[in-house]
Amino acid sequence: MKKTRIGLIRVLTTNDPEVLGLHGNIIMDLFPELEVITHCIPGQPQGVFDQTTEKQAWPKVVALAQEMATDGLKAIVVSCAADPGVRQAREVLDIPVIGAGSAAAHVALSLDTSIAALGITDNIPEAMADVLGPALIASAKPVGVETTVDLMAPNGKKATLEQAEKLKEKGAKVLVLACTGMSTIGVAQDIREELNIRVVDPVVASGFLAWYVAREL
Amino acid sequence: MKKTRIGLIRVLTTNDPEVLGLHGNIIMDLFPELEVITHCIPGQPQGVFDQTTEKQAWPKVVALAQEMATDGLKAIVVSCAADPGVRQAREVLDIPVIGAGSAAAHVALSLDTSIAALGITDNIPEAMADVLGPALIASAKPVGVETTVDLMAPNGKKATLEQAEKLKEKGAKVLVLACTGMSTIGVAQDIREELNIRVVDPVVASGFLAWYVAREL
Repeated sequence: MKKTRIGLIRVLTTNDPEVLGLHGNIIMDLFPELEVITHCIPGQPQGVFDQTTEKQAWPKVVALAQEMATDGLKAIVVSCAADPGVRQAREVLDIPVIGAGSAAAHVALSLDTSIAALGITDNIPEAMADVLGPALIASAKPVGVETTVDLMAPNGKKATLEQAEKLKEKGAKVLVLACTGMSTIGVAQDIREELNIRVVDPVVASGFLAWYVAREL
Repeated sequence: MKKTRIGLIRVLTTNDPEVLGLHGNIIMDLFPELEVITHCIPGQPQGVFDQTTEKQAWPKVVALAQEMATDGLKAIVVSCAADPGVRQAREVLDIPVIGAGSAAAHVALSLDTSIAALGITDNIPEAMADVLGPALIASAKPVGVETTVDLMAPNGKKATLEQAEKLKEKGAKVLVLACTGMSTIGVAQDIREELNIRVVDPVVASGFLAWYVAREL
């Protein structure tokens, strides 16, 4: 099978190839037609988790996207729910730039208009809130989690599930995850199994859209 | 291969099984994992092409969706860019109800935020305009086309291509088709080949989202 090459930008700086490749592997497992080339931005070992780290990240994302785009990629995914640099990268690149946050919000809204969001910040990223608008009926963050690194701690998944249950009780029909660190710990599947609610994972959603581009639908 | 059954509602009333099955066949050709069960609403041989015909259609769509949902379907697609009855059907059904108009608008916005729309009405359907918001930089309709039936006339495709070219000249990066009659005549592929612009087809977009639901992503 001839695979279509897409790029993926991590905003969590890491030297560990296994950690680096996690999101790309999620996408390649679900969409074997894709070959995902992953790079991370420098200098952000805690990732993007507030406006300051988002501002630090976005110019680095644009620079990296420009560099990666010279490598014959069909699309680039920015694997962060805050979509850092997505708007700006679109201005300078000809290939589609897919933001994990906006992709997840759009997929959720295609299925229903009663959405709850589960992230790691007090307010969900602007890139997602702007898309969801009045369809966002509630949002929450796991207790004790401030960064994507905290999600990987032993109690990260449990704390996430507790908040997911509260959001379901508020009547949302679709739960969208507002941090790609939740994709890293694979919590979407746990939420589905425990709570029987539809969950949109931002890394999966962005891979889904990259697959749309690759298939030239 | 075990196929997932989804429903598709046509808002163009027809007794011709070939015409009836056109949108379902487009989806099954692209997503062989899906089996599409199609029904049409009664009494609208010219389809939905303005506010009056939309108002006539939506309660019939909801009633048909309720009836079809008893048949063990995983999702229902309303194959009309105006999303008639989608919001209301979501209120009464537990399975996802996907509107071709909003699905196409969301897919387009996942890829870029500079969108043009090509429909059959002076203003594009509200269900799409609401989603696209300020990202919609221009819209147009083919000269001489008032209903989906006109699109199937000999000059329907040519008239559509002429307007697509004008929309590309206005600088849009993605062109979204705002009438599923354009899916029927397969004009998306002609536009891509002639103008080298990304085109989102509403029937394909709704099938793409139904496939997302079927795969339990």
